[in-house]
Amino acid sequence: MSNPVTINAPEGLPFIEIERDFDAPVEAVFRAYAEPELVKQWLGPHDMEMELNEYNCSSGGQYRYVHRDPAGEEYPFRGMFHTVRENELIVQTFEFEGFPDVVSIESMTFTDLGNGRSKVTGQSAFPSVEARDGIIASDMETGVVQGYERLDKVLAQG
Amino acid sequence: MSNPVTINAPEGLPFIEIERDFDAPVEAVFRAYAEPELVKQWLGPHDMEMELNEYNCSSGGQYRYVHRDPAGEEYPFRGMFHTVRENELIVQTFEFEGFPDVVSIESMTFTDLGNGRSKVTGQSAFPSVEARDGIIASDMETGVVQGYERLDKVLAQG
Repeated sequence: MSNPVTINAPEGLPFIEIERDFDAPVEAVFRAYAEPELVKQWLGPHDMEMELNEYNCSSGGQYRYVHRDPAGEEYPFRGMFHTVRENELIVQTFEFEGFPDVVSIESMTFTDLGNGRSKVTGQSAFPSVEARDGIIASDMETGVVQGYERLDKVLAQG
Repeated sequence: MSNPVTINAPEGLPFIEIERDFDAPVEAVFRAYAEPELVKQWLGPHDMEMELNEYNCSSGGQYRYVHRDPAGEEYPFRGMFHTVRENELIVQTFEFEGFPDVVSIESMTFTDLGNGRSKVTGQSAFPSVEARDGIIASDMETGVVQGYERLDKVLAQG
């Protein structure tokens, strides 16, 4: 049984809030967000191949990756890491290159729940409510839910 | 006579929108945003000294500066340049270190109005309406209006 994901898109505000518990210590979950070899194994929905062009998860670093669906369609994303504090916080920009220049700011907070469990609380702030609604309409929920299922597996491997 | 500044803080949304015309070509205005030696001469209110620690205005670059008021009080700011397209667009993160981890995303669009005139349209998106309201309450308007008056002078020097 995997833990449920809470996705909240508050009416009339350009935010998406995501919350997920993990049956793994905060250090392991943070590592899975920070290390490119681990990120590659879980970020995104089940049926996507992920090509990681750059992933330097430290304050001032950058990332770019391409998701490729079974039909060969490509979805490139890029951003910068504004703040990275180990086992605590990642603040990064996020842009889907298919919607160029619509850049959101994402904040992921990592919390130790004790007993080897932890929580990730994410917020994305978009430059318009329409941009937020577009992301929700693109079924990002499936990508988030499936990505976290894959992350559970990465964490189970230790 | 300097051109008026329009500052819009839409009710219930975490945005600040700023618009200002300049009696100078778009290339000159963009340069004043991009070159550290020029930025130093205008960014911020009249009575502040500005110390520029870093200002690398290119995609992937970073900035940090400190405003110092006549009483010696310091206001440090930092961010990253997500996108810089010459004479067109700057997208950057923005953090006042006095409110750590509250990071907004700013987008400045540069438009050629013809006849040697140009327009800058800026948007800031904050991670909460409260953070936006806090910036408005800090009298950012004075800083913006006075900064643009100083920018007019920089542009007049050619």
